[in-house]
Amino acid sequence: MLDFEKAGGLVSAIAQDDQTGEVLMIAWMNREAFEETVRTGRAVYYSRSRKKLWRKGEESGNVQEVREVRVDCDNDAVLLKVNQIGGAACHEGYKSCFFRRLEKDGSLSVQGERVFDPQQVYKK
Amino acid sequence: MLDFEKAGGLVSAIAQDDQTGEVLMIAWMNREAFEETVRTGRAVYYSRSRKKLWRKGEESGNVQEVREVRVDCDNDAVLLKVNQIGGAACHEGYKSCFFRRLEKDGSLSVQGERVFDPQQVYKK
Repeated sequence: MLDFEKAGGLVSAIAQDDQTGEVLMIAWMNREAFEETVRTGRAVYYSRSRKKLWRKGEESGNVQEVREVRVDCDNDAVLLKVNQIGGAACHEGYKSCFFRRLEKDGSLSVQGERVFDPQQVYKK
Repeated sequence: MLDFEKAGGLVSAIAQDDQTGEVLMIAWMNREAFEETVRTGRAVYYSRSRKKLWRKGEESGNVQEVREVRVDCDNDAVLLKVNQIGGAACHEGYKSCFFRRLEKDGSLSVQGERVFDPQQVYKK
């Protein structure tokens, strides 16, 4: 059903808040990640940098419960409508990874407030 | 500001309906596409298959007026909040490219109705 060949074994995956419609993040999935996501109902991505499955929230507890899966017309992207446990999808502690807005002067302004302090959650 | 090097000169670009929050499509941008988007206020993508700029709507008239640009935490994806002229972003005539929902039996069901007939619009 999905075309994993177009981008070297991966499809794009967008996570959107099921209730508010806010776009939370974008990541990648290989076939294994997609199948585990569908089977378990929790978002699993593929980390290109770590070259392995990324079970979203396995470290922070902020898992994404998948309410609905949409597939795009090219079969190379999926849209997950999710319930974001913990209220924040971004590893920087914001609800959405898209927490910065481009302003007319070319600068980026932070929108919204941190839901958690990354240093507390990840304890690195 | 954006990291175009991570994915061979491209960043991901998600278009979202500014009013309803519906995710309309995902595409790619190179630096030129991004800069033209910001400068003109109309979404310009980069077509990987045609290897050139894709001024969304230049053929169909269904341009996307960009109301807001968000940048993600990794600097390799942008979120455009747009006003979709013509009401449909998808070349298949649906409002969103994500017009198919994955059902429990593994099939895809079409959600929503066609806004236009692709054969009329593109006259191919």
